[in-house]
Amino acid sequence: MDQKIINRRDLDFLLYELLDLESLTQRPRYAEHDRGTFDSAVDLALRIAVEKFAPHNRKADANEPTFDGQRVSMIPEVKEAVDAYCEAGLMLASHDYEQGGMQLPFTLAQAALALVKGANVSTSAYVMLTSAAANLLLAHGSEEQKKRFAEPMLEGRFLGTMVLTEPQAGSSLGDIRTTAEPAGDGTYRIKGNKIFISAGDHELSENIVHLVLARIKGAPAGVKGISLFIVPKFLVNEDGSLGERNDVALAGLIHKMGYRGTTSTMLNFGEKEGAVGYLIGEPNKGLSYMFHMMNAARIGVGLGATMLGYAGYLESLDYARTRQQGRLLDNKDPSAPPATIVDHPDVRRMLLAQKVFVEGSLALCLYAARQLDEQKTADSEQARTEAGLLLDILTPLVKAWTSHYSLEANYHAIQIFGGYGYTREYPVEQIYRDNRLNPIHEGTNGIQGLDLLGRKVRMHDGAALKLLGQRMRETIDEAAGFDAPISGWAQELAGALATVGDVTRVLLERAAAGDVSLAFGNAWHYLDMVGHTVVAWLWLKQAIVAQRALDAGRDEDFYRGKILACRYFFLYELPKVKQQADLLRRLDDTLLQAKESYF
Amino acid sequence: MDQKIINRRDLDFLLYELLDLESLTQRPRYAEHDRGTFDSAVDLALRIAVEKFAPHNRKADANEPTFDGQRVSMIPEVKEAVDAYCEAGLMLASHDYEQGGMQLPFTLAQAALALVKGANVSTSAYVMLTSAAANLLLAHGSEEQKKRFAEPMLEGRFLGTMVLTEPQAGSSLGDIRTTAEPAGDGTYRIKGNKIFISAGDHELSENIVHLVLARIKGAPAGVKGISLFIVPKFLVNEDGSLGERNDVALAGLIHKMGYRGTTSTMLNFGEKEGAVGYLIGEPNKGLSYMFHMMNAARIGVGLGATMLGYAGYLESLDYARTRQQGRLLDNKDPSAPPATIVDHPDVRRMLLAQKVFVEGSLALCLYAARQLDEQKTADSEQARTEAGLLLDILTPLVKAWTSHYSLEANYHAIQIFGGYGYTREYPVEQIYRDNRLNPIHEGTNGIQGLDLLGRKVRMHDGAALKLLGQRMRETIDEAAGFDAPISGWAQELAGALATVGDVTRVLLERAAAGDVSLAFGNAWHYLDMVGHTVVAWLWLKQAIVAQRALDAGRDEDFYRGKILACRYFFLYELPKVKQQADLLRRLDDTLLQAKESYF
Repeated sequence: MDQKIINRRDLDFLLYELLDLESLTQRPRYAEHDRGTFDSAVDLALRIAVEKFAPHNRKADANEPTFDGQRVSMIPEVKEAVDAYCEAGLMLASHDYEQGGMQLPFTLAQAALALVKGANVSTSAYVMLTSAAANLLLAHGSEEQKKRFAEPMLEGRFLGTMVLTEPQAGSSLGDIRTTAEPAGDGTYRIKGNKIFISAGDHELSENIVHLVLARIKGAPAGVKGISLFIVPKFLVNEDGSLGERNDVALAGLIHKMGYRGTTSTMLNFGEKEGAVGYLIGEPNKGLSYMFHMMNAARIGVGLGATMLGYAGYLESLDYARTRQQGRLLDNKDPSAPPATIVDHPDVRRMLLAQKVFVEGSLALCLYAARQLDEQKTADSEQARTEAGLLLDILTPLVKAWTSHYSLEANYHAIQIFGGYGYTREYPVEQIYRDNRLNPIHEGTNGIQGLDLLGRKVRMHDGAALKLLGQRMRETIDEAAGFDAPISGWAQELAGALATVGDVTRVLLERAAAGDVSLAFGNAWHYLDMVGHTVVAWLWLKQAIVAQRALDAGRDEDFYRGKILACRYFFLYELPKVKQQADLLRRLDDTLLQAKESYF
Repeated sequence: MDQKIINRRDLDFLLYELLDLESLTQRPRYAEHDRGTFDSAVDLALRIAVEKFAPHNRKADANEPTFDGQRVSMIPEVKEAVDAYCEAGLMLASHDYEQGGMQLPFTLAQAALALVKGANVSTSAYVMLTSAAANLLLAHGSEEQKKRFAEPMLEGRFLGTMVLTEPQAGSSLGDIRTTAEPAGDGTYRIKGNKIFISAGDHELSENIVHLVLARIKGAPAGVKGISLFIVPKFLVNEDGSLGERNDVALAGLIHKMGYRGTTSTMLNFGEKEGAVGYLIGEPNKGLSYMFHMMNAARIGVGLGATMLGYAGYLESLDYARTRQQGRLLDNKDPSAPPATIVDHPDVRRMLLAQKVFVEGSLALCLYAARQLDEQKTADSEQARTEAGLLLDILTPLVKAWTSHYSLEANYHAIQIFGGYGYTREYPVEQIYRDNRLNPIHEGTNGIQGLDLLGRKVRMHDGAALKLLGQRMRETIDEAAGFDAPISGWAQELAGALATVGDVTRVLLERAAAGDVSLAFGNAWHYLDMVGHTVVAWLWLKQAIVAQRALDAGRDEDFYRGKILACRYFFLYELPKVKQQADLLRRLDDTLLQAKESYF
């Protein structure tokens, strides 16, 4: 049985019908592209995903990397897949032609990455981290750093990492203790212990380029004293050849519930004389540079979570279409042949729940990616600025809402498989284990709630939230011109949007009055409320497109499925906005009252 | 670090303050008991749990049983634990003195079993299944069957199983195909393939007693043609000694996400001449007998799920009390020492969510167990009948609500541990994997929804739901006499109860009108709504007890914690009743409209 990755019809719908990606070919940057080259890129990524990533997905799970004290070993298929990805040029999908890239829209590059993630999320981590690290260097590194490190990374000769967390500092990066001391020659000596470094050691590539957060001695406390360094596993000579081993040691591999093919490492920097590090940009601005990578990683986490949700949906759908069990509720004849379980209302409930979560999540991820294209290539300065704002405010939703609900989708997928779903013979149990990481890494979902409420909705005097509201109102106005049920959903979305605005005002006023803990204590629920509203909006947008297609007599079942899913979301999910809003508006202090000794 | 199992203070609160277990000592059956003997039984079970079950919990997970084609091998600690449990007499905790039992209340026996489940759910399965199988034989077997099979099971010399599922028949037992043919000597020859048989093979005991559902040739189709047979692994001679190997073969072990210490087996009956089987009771009534065991197993699943939820809660609470990370939201001084994470509102939210789910679930499980004691020993016939009705209607909630929400609790536990929670170095990832089975086995949670709405609320003209409502109203009346907030919660619960009644009427009327699929299609949501109402009631009962204790000046923090948890439940969880009710009342046909081709 082939591993399920995507419903290509849905992906095309999202890219071309919802997000109108073809319109980008009107812009100078993408002038050489057309629908054909876009499709070819997706075809290429899907082929790599199917041929190189999917086949060892289960094998990598069952055969974790090992460390004998000297070297990390893993199954050879991981390297073959990473190499194939790089050789196909997918690491450079969105990069300039001059860099050897395909100069594809970022949205399309994300779609390509999504396919590889859906096929094998743990192997995809190696390329995703490398791509994000290289892009950080392209944005903030010196010309020499770009040449010496970023270029080999984009070629796949070197792989990259992001090295933030320490045993005592995970969510609280301001507390990192790793030090950097100037060596007198422009380089630094790095010393400290890091943990949970994904892809932190392996032999997949000639070299590993660690991007490491550390404090230059004497730097201010907290996040304002953090600098960012390139610390390669092997030093790189001026001619690009590898020099000696740097003072970075693998202290051990971490064994995880899932994502088992990705090494998760404890790294010791500077056990001897100190690891050689190269400062990126200016001292003490490291965290702001790292956010370039963290934002990419957060979007990547959301995309990976979404694709795991999507894979579970497709697997359970396939099972539901073939498995026979029981009789329909209004058939009490025991001698009648069993029903196919896709026809049981409870199974349809679990399929629809998955469909709205995963297709809604993918729409959200790709909509966010589309903003990156707008930010880069929109005609006006205003449009570019607005796209940046939307991307900023959507990022915590892309990371947290999708990872929360795609895991809930996976719960349903297992449930549809019944006892089989719990066994390691079927794919959904690994998917569920893999996906459990996504609400944690790159900033826990609780942290994302604080990022959304405490930072993103407040920045620029609330400009991002206001803009998001404007975009939603445009859709509401458009939907109001349709017949029921779409016009009714427009009203419901308008209500939810007003609720979000009202709750936001209540919370921010209270925060401004000094009760920050009370105002922000339920930030997760706030994110959940906003996320549901945004995804409802994206479903309404899909329903509008689908209704127009139906009116034009096209592809009936696919579009009816979209409209039915929208109906499910508005009926089963959107009402949660009101419940969350009621909770948030009360500014109840239950959480603050919960003394440690009460537990 | 010691494995966490229970907050003994809470267990004592539930047993003695909420459920007034000491009052049972007034009844003849328990006259020789007092609080001291009750406590000793709990102490004993806790000691066995801590000393024999907990120490190999992780080891059994990491070292699954193996099958070499001849024999099943597993780590020796499993047998030591099972033996210790039996030698301590815990298999007979609630049985008559004449049977060698302790004649303890069933509620207490369940509490004892809970501790062992919390320590090691996969090893506990061997004793739980044996106990439930032996009790079925005591209730429905012949005297000879009791002597030859049930007695050695209660001694732990033989272990038991329940053998229902076949590859094509899981939720739909009416479709089983295993056959039973009379051998002419009063015995039968059983042939068929069974799957997902927990504890279906091992060498933990001299013998394994399978209770097997099969069809006697010529029996009616469906559930009315199913009979129940004893099929021992080894035949048992009249003197109780073991005879030859029966024709039951292990076709293979199933590898699961969790519960890895429990063998899950495919068994082939009658590959040769047919397995010797002994009919229990009358032909074609097998499913009704098996329900004796299935109900016990469903309560056992709920209890196990609850204890896994509880364990995760305690582990994450312990971590939250020691882990330092970040600053409180209103402290922006980066040089201040980090906060203990238990003081972050978002962590408190996740702790309170766990507390209300797991302590609420344990209250529900023990309240249900208490009904078994009432059913057996209440003074009046009416009281005994009523207890039986309550137990019947609570069983699907005990199985499904607890398993759903204890897994949600485990999600929060991992989240509190952050990245560490996802690693196999910490206990919560195993707990999460173990607990994922519980919404599936012994009737999926979807099936439980149908059992509740389609069967339990309708039986005896709705007598069980009416009675449950009466019990809730008694609490509401009592709570109305308190000050706020308790009196306010009484009103809210009254509202939820009225809502449940109203929704039930709407659904049953529609079902009676013939639209069964429409009326019952959202049965899971119905169960969720009723479960939330029932657990809110149990929290209100706890709050009343706690307020009285506070008024009497006792044990302040513990009781304040109970009241705060009740507040959390009413604020964060109970509003979901209204949302579910709104959905159910609409009798919307979205699920019925979801044609296979729409997905």
